[in-house]
Amino acid sequence: MRAPDSSIQFDENGHLKHFLTVNGLTRKSLVNILDTAESFINFGQREIKKVPLLRGKTLVNLFFEPSTRTRTTFEIAGKRLSADVINLNASRMSTTKGESILDTVRTLEAMHTDLFIVRDKASGAAHLIAAHLPDHIKVINAGDGRHSHPTQAMLDMFTIRQKKPDFSRLKVAIVGDILHSRVARSQIHALNILGVDEVRVIGPRTLIPTEIEKMGVTTTSDLIGGLEGIDVIIMLRIQHERMDGQLIPSEQEYFQRYGLTENKLQLANEDAIVMHPGPINRGLEIASSVADGSRSVILNQVTNGIAVRMSIMAKLMGGQEKRS
Amino acid sequence: MRAPDSSIQFDENGHLKHFLTVNGLTRKSLVNILDTAESFINFGQREIKKVPLLRGKTLVNLFFEPSTRTRTTFEIAGKRLSADVINLNASRMSTTKGESILDTVRTLEAMHTDLFIVRDKASGAAHLIAAHLPDHIKVINAGDGRHSHPTQAMLDMFTIRQKKPDFSRLKVAIVGDILHSRVARSQIHALNILGVDEVRVIGPRTLIPTEIEKMGVTTTSDLIGGLEGIDVIIMLRIQHERMDGQLIPSEQEYFQRYGLTENKLQLANEDAIVMHPGPINRGLEIASSVADGSRSVILNQVTNGIAVRMSIMAKLMGGQEKRS
Amino acid sequence: MRAPDSSIQFDENGHLKHFLTVNGLTRKSLVNILDTAESFINFGQREIKKVPLLRGKTLVNLFFEPSTRTRTTFEIAGKRLSADVINLNASRMSTTKGESILDTVRTLEAMHTDLFIVRDKASGAAHLIAAHLPDHIKVINAGDGRHSHPTQAMLDMFTIRQKKPDFSRLKVAIVGDILHSRVARSQIHALNILGVDEVRVIGPRTLIPTEIEKMGVTTTSDLIGGLEGIDVIIMLRIQHERMDGQLIPSEQEYFQRYGLTENKLQLANEDAIVMHPGPINRGLEIASSVADGSRSVILNQVTNGIAVRMSIMAKLMGGQEKRS
Repeated sequence: MRAPDSSIQFDENGHLKHFLTVNGLTRKSLVNILDTAESFINFGQREIKKVPLLRGKTLVNLFFEPSTRTRTTFEIAGKRLSADVINLNASRMSTTKGESILDTVRTLEAMHTDLFIVRDKASGAAHLIAAHLPDHIKVINAGDGRHSHPTQAMLDMFTIRQKKPDFSRLKVAIVGDILHSRVARSQIHALNILGVDEVRVIGPRTLIPTEIEKMGVTTTSDLIGGLEGIDVIIMLRIQHERMDGQLIPSEQEYFQRYGLTENKLQLANEDAIVMHPGPINRGLEIASSVADGSRSVILNQVTNGIAVRMSIMAKLMGGQEKRS
Repeated sequence: MRAPDSSIQFDENGHLKHFLTVNGLTRKSLVNILDTAESFINFGQREIKKVPLLRGKTLVNLFFEPSTRTRTTFEIAGKRLSADVINLNASRMSTTKGESILDTVRTLEAMHTDLFIVRDKASGAAHLIAAHLPDHIKVINAGDGRHSHPTQAMLDMFTIRQKKPDFSRLKVAIVGDILHSRVARSQIHALNILGVDEVRVIGPRTLIPTEIEKMGVTTTSDLIGGLEGIDVIIMLRIQHERMDGQLIPSEQEYFQRYGLTENKLQLANEDAIVMHPGPINRGLEIASSVADGSRSVILNQVTNGIAVRMSIMAKLMGGQEKRS
Repeated sequence: MRAPDSSIQFDENGHLKHFLTVNGLTRKSLVNILDTAESFINFGQREIKKVPLLRGKTLVNLFFEPSTRTRTTFEIAGKRLSADVINLNASRMSTTKGESILDTVRTLEAMHTDLFIVRDKASGAAHLIAAHLPDHIKVINAGDGRHSHPTQAMLDMFTIRQKKPDFSRLKVAIVGDILHSRVARSQIHALNILGVDEVRVIGPRTLIPTEIEKMGVTTTSDLIGGLEGIDVIIMLRIQHERMDGQLIPSEQEYFQRYGLTENKLQLANEDAIVMHPGPINRGLEIASSVADGSRSVILNQVTNGIAVRMSIMAKLMGGQEKRS
């Protein structure tokens, strides 16, 4: 899989005009997004959770691959910014009438919409759409194939920074099905840009892409040894449909070897935190006691997800982000 | 079926913090809700049907069992109170990804949502959810299994009071499939709390639960005799899928024995009113001429449903309701 | 098919109270709608695309036949007018519970909704609904069976007028599947009312209704000859499901005989414009180079669709339109 060209997310002055991938962003850019998100983090506790930043703008949730959960986070973020939010079950729209993605997008553009949140099974879909839109319309990638899920990575970075402000000292483990995970790819890029000490990828050999080490990570298929010295443990979601005996053995065997339990958690650093993009499979990749335990920041990730998405939306629509 | 614990709908000071069931509420509480709803009843005729009571609040329609009609009433009520309304096809969300109801709810809670409208096929679902939420998040039960449908009961009480203000003199008949009706259960509780003279349950023996008399009602399987002296006739909806020859004979036979016709309506008191929670099956449980006739208050129930739901939402979010 | 009675769209003073069909409207009426739409045409470029004309009003998208695209245009138009928009998958609502269309509509009316956007597979559905509503509730027909799609016709007239202000000189060709097209019927009415010089209907004999000439059009099955002298070419969408060898031969053969290519476009007048209601089938009824070419106004149609729908909504809800 060739990575789509990420340069199109900048305008000629180096300002961020779309948010398609963290790959190619500078450390300063990422930190700037995280800093802006801070201003939205207490927003959720306000009496009136509403600011007029996107008032009179039309946000389109263009989900060619359905995801109620992710769609909801963008819908809530958009509505709190006072945008008009249009939810499109785009998969149905296009398949029913045989319309191409680009024709759908051009039609929506002609309706004077302002911001597209794009999710698709195909890698590079958001890039493709962004490349065909005029400058004043912005695109946020909400997950494209196995390629990228950059807002998830940013909310993860935000969550890590809340607990561990100095990235340069951190050893981070990403555990599970790396092969099929767009989340893992985006996290690895972000962690490296932010300059962590080590990213360690842990999973069955069948689920670790062969060329992953080129991304600047270490790999191991041994969770027991792999957790040593780790500050941040990011568990990935296992797709049940992968449990076919080929890539992954049985659920019990997977949980035994790669499921995060209280005992295994002891192997990491004393103050290690546990993350998961959700929804979690209790008893498959993570024990309930760990998911609900004091080291888990899984629900913090959800809360931060709203703030980070509001921040990115506000930034793109306001357009002040500098490249370098 | 054991009734879920209704005490969790009160806080330690006896204020109503959720609206899960009418069982356990005082007469004063019910009257207070009805009185508050009065202030919303002319609202629907206003030029601008919008008040800012829930502005900046996020209302989630969390329907694990789909119901476009009921969902719409809550969506309209919420939007007229200026809330941001998020509709979740929760059944699809959870079944697709194998997430548990409580994980879904905790995730939504982490997004700083304020009010859940919950509908589920399982009795006690709204109670379960309410029991696991922090105090500042409110739950309204929009129907759980065969157990309860309290907002429907309240709009019915409101509709009765509009026409017959003195509950103590009223004889009320509830006719049809009591066995499967959460509406009937909630109505019986509410009518008894409000102190009606008699609640008479009428239906085929196969559709009257054996222990229903413990709820303080009289029962009969004879509609002809049963309508004598009745002031309020509440017809229940028959589910077509029950027409399998076991619980109910044929549609024709059911209509002949239990369908409300003009002739049978003459057997009740002269000024008796006719109610139905909708949607009606014309020619099955009720004749069209009765449903559309001058004694029918079926559409009043719909109108009142918006006002009563706005009232309950405003009350929970404002939080002034006292228990006793 | 008998045309539904269009007189019900006027009140006793000749004001337009519903928008069901262009048939029966005066030239003055149509021009008035087009003129009002002019005031909304630059609206889409504004910083804040929001006016409070329908604030506090409840608009219901009542789509018994699903159409994400058309629904979206009305949702966007309604939200920009500040209405509360309720989307109903009405097909599911009614079929699931066996409720009739009129009972659904009466129920929504009882919720004090203000404006229904109705789409249905059955001709006359919007008329039927309008005939049963009280005066203060308005109906817009968003497509009923093969009968009418009047807002599409109005946006087409608006688009034509932008490029060719003098209707009296225009020769307009409508090409394709006239037989199944509600769009074509509405366009023919509108073009004749606006007094164009000629409407020429072009398509396979099997797809031209036998009595169409009574509507005041000329017909031909020869696209080559038919394009001569034409100023406006309106291509219709071909439904793939019609490609069964009975009404239409193969896709290749259809494209060869009736698909609009650059070469065929040369046969029309030099400054002829090309229109299509969308979504387009590239390579079936129209070549990509034509659809995306300099003569195409297909995306202008989409943009104008929002303005025209806002204009009609505002007009009905304000109620100043005079019949003659």
